[in-house]
Amino acid sequence: MALIVQKYGGSSVADIDRIKNVAKRVAKYHAQGDQVVVVVSAMKGQTDHLIGLAKELTDIPSEREMDMILATGEQTSIALTAIALHTMGVPAVSLTGAQAGIITDLVHTKAKIRNITPEQVHELLDAGNVVIVAGFQGQTPDGHITTLGRGGSDLTAIALAAATNADLCQIYTDVDGVYTTDPRITDQAQKLEEISYDEMLELASSGAKVMQSRSVEFAKNHGVVFEVRSSLNDNPGTIVKEETKSMEDVVIRGVSLDKNQAKITLVNVPDKPGVAATIFKAISDAAINVDMIVQNISHGDGNKSTDMSFTVGKADLAKAKSIIDGLHSGIQFGEALADEDIGMLSIVGVGMKNHTGVATKMFATLSSEGVNIEMISTSEIKISVVVRLEDGERAVKAVHAAFLEE
Amino acid sequence: MALIVQKYGGSSVADIDRIKNVAKRVAKYHAQGDQVVVVVSAMKGQTDHLIGLAKELTDIPSEREMDMILATGEQTSIALTAIALHTMGVPAVSLTGAQAGIITDLVHTKAKIRNITPEQVHELLDAGNVVIVAGFQGQTPDGHITTLGRGGSDLTAIALAAATNADLCQIYTDVDGVYTTDPRITDQAQKLEEISYDEMLELASSGAKVMQSRSVEFAKNHGVVFEVRSSLNDNPGTIVKEETKSMEDVVIRGVSLDKNQAKITLVNVPDKPGVAATIFKAISDAAINVDMIVQNISHGDGNKSTDMSFTVGKADLAKAKSIIDGLHSGIQFGEALADEDIGMLSIVGVGMKNHTGVATKMFATLSSEGVNIEMISTSEIKISVVVRLEDGERAVKAVHAAFLEE
Repeated sequence: MALIVQKYGGSSVADIDRIKNVAKRVAKYHAQGDQVVVVVSAMKGQTDHLIGLAKELTDIPSEREMDMILATGEQTSIALTAIALHTMGVPAVSLTGAQAGIITDLVHTKAKIRNITPEQVHELLDAGNVVIVAGFQGQTPDGHITTLGRGGSDLTAIALAAATNADLCQIYTDVDGVYTTDPRITDQAQKLEEISYDEMLELASSGAKVMQSRSVEFAKNHGVVFEVRSSLNDNPGTIVKEETKSMEDVVIRGVSLDKNQAKITLVNVPDKPGVAATIFKAISDAAINVDMIVQNISHGDGNKSTDMSFTVGKADLAKAKSIIDGLHSGIQFGEALADEDIGMLSIVGVGMKNHTGVATKMFATLSSEGVNIEMISTSEIKISVVVRLEDGERAVKAVHAAFLEE
Repeated sequence: MALIVQKYGGSSVADIDRIKNVAKRVAKYHAQGDQVVVVVSAMKGQTDHLIGLAKELTDIPSEREMDMILATGEQTSIALTAIALHTMGVPAVSLTGAQAGIITDLVHTKAKIRNITPEQVHELLDAGNVVIVAGFQGQTPDGHITTLGRGGSDLTAIALAAATNADLCQIYTDVDGVYTTDPRITDQAQKLEEISYDEMLELASSGAKVMQSRSVEFAKNHGVVFEVRSSLNDNPGTIVKEETKSMEDVVIRGVSLDKNQAKITLVNVPDKPGVAATIFKAISDAAINVDMIVQNISHGDGNKSTDMSFTVGKADLAKAKSIIDGLHSGIQFGEALADEDIGMLSIVGVGMKNHTGVATKMFATLSSEGVNIEMISTSEIKISVVVRLEDGERAVKAVHAAFLEE
């Protein structure tokens, strides 16, 4: 008998038929004698509908009141899931985030989980029930309803798995697991049996959107092993866990392509102390996230100058460009160029730490494919390059073939 | 500065425009310096939508889980109402029933309010906020979400008015108040300035569905004076309060017609002790509510027998008839006749206690109108008669003219 936490996203509970399918799967584990905690999201489309209602009133509704509204989405789906289980003869009880003992900080719409007191969850499980918990939500110590922001239901599941010392945490999605690369780019993509937290984090930050980084980080910090798998079949998924020795035998775990980055290049920036600090303080003050920064070495003799490039999310490009333009008279650079037509290709693997020549092989592969590299950035387990957007998928295929196919 | 509790029903918050209208009205009182607690129902249609979702799974969903689902309806409308007030610059905070301190018993879908601890409501009011409370819901001492059943939002408002010692409790509806009779039957119907709790209760039980009896009873038991008025205009409504001496000067407060009653007549019932007890125990065991019972005196000489008639709600008629038919061999009555085509006309007034000849005048009026009376029942402040359904409205007009015009 195991204690299993299962999480189902909005598309898995999008309508009554899908809710029945979730219930069938849960019932199977319950029939085996497992204790099952089920975390569900709001029915797909429901959150947008609720946001739409509020937006009819104002573009900037109170975040506290938005949490009050949004929490109803999961409250509806947990009760429907419980009822679906009842119709199969399985005892089940739904709990809101607050009822499940999920206490958060006071930051409405993107609250952090502070702690979980799962006494009621355990009591209900011990009485033979499946316990259905509303994902994405909690309450402050004062009893205000909060929501956890993007990827919040994954976080609820992983945090509940940690708090209840679950034997297994399963994150059900509409894909079979984590792949060596996006299967839509190459049919040579293979599902991974396992991946380390750090590899998963680097892949997520490089555009492979299976899960939000914060949930993976939470799992890493609390040692929660979890499985990403499909709610559409019974195939085993991908286990995400702490790095093991054997994982390092594989040089590269996966290849990702982020098409949502854009590049800003400042030409002829005076090469003086404090210039980079001025630029990136202004950008970060505007809450814009910068991923990659590259500065070439100075050239010329007299007044030394340099070129500086950095990447931001496409959605932030216009804002970032206008901030940079505002610095023009102060910093006296030549000009600022914005470029949306880039792709950021990354290879990720803990094995990189013990293997040499990985970067060389990657660059050689891209070169023989005729793909020009515009920027390079490396970390201990990741190498990222910026290429032309139109070269992106071809570059992924070539790199995937070089590292991950026979 | 007064503390005012206002209640708005589902049609008053049916869409965003109506919610804005509610907010405007609330803002006006707030601008006057009043402390305002607003109780709102779910947006019209929302409750049916949620029930429909559950019914796709089963005809008899768990009542606990139905409460979980239904409570989301009010949770959405309170937050939208708060946001609407924010857009007008009025500070407002929404609270679920649980957050407002409304504690109920454990009877899901028709819970009774046990007590209210309104500390948070007072704190928020004292900080200058309008407080928006979800009607129709509460929680058990163990933290399970409950709903209060039909008319539950009225009950929330009246109970909150009692718990907070409010100066005024306003129940906003889509009618201007309580009328001497249904204005759709006669344009001579007049809005009442005031009415006693007991008269309101007798009218409610006689088919005038402005409010459910339980809310009026709660108000009576806790001495909450409230006003029934329209959310569509600024007309003063009807004050409902304890009977005063001056109220007795008016003989008849109102005339009601209940078209939802049906009659069952048992012909040739043996006139022996215990027969009525057997019949009405069987009916009440089936949770069927009997309103009026009439038994004629015995006729014949040898084996004495009698006719017995009683009324039940139309929805219960088939069930009641089959129960009675099941008693046939035991009790040995002649036959049981079911009749749906009746109307129950009632006149109500505390003044009746001090005025004689009221019944005589009523019967004479009906007689001169050619309306046959099939059953009669009286209480201290009410006289009810059963007539043919097709005579009902004509009878109301005649009685209303005799007692309430000129």
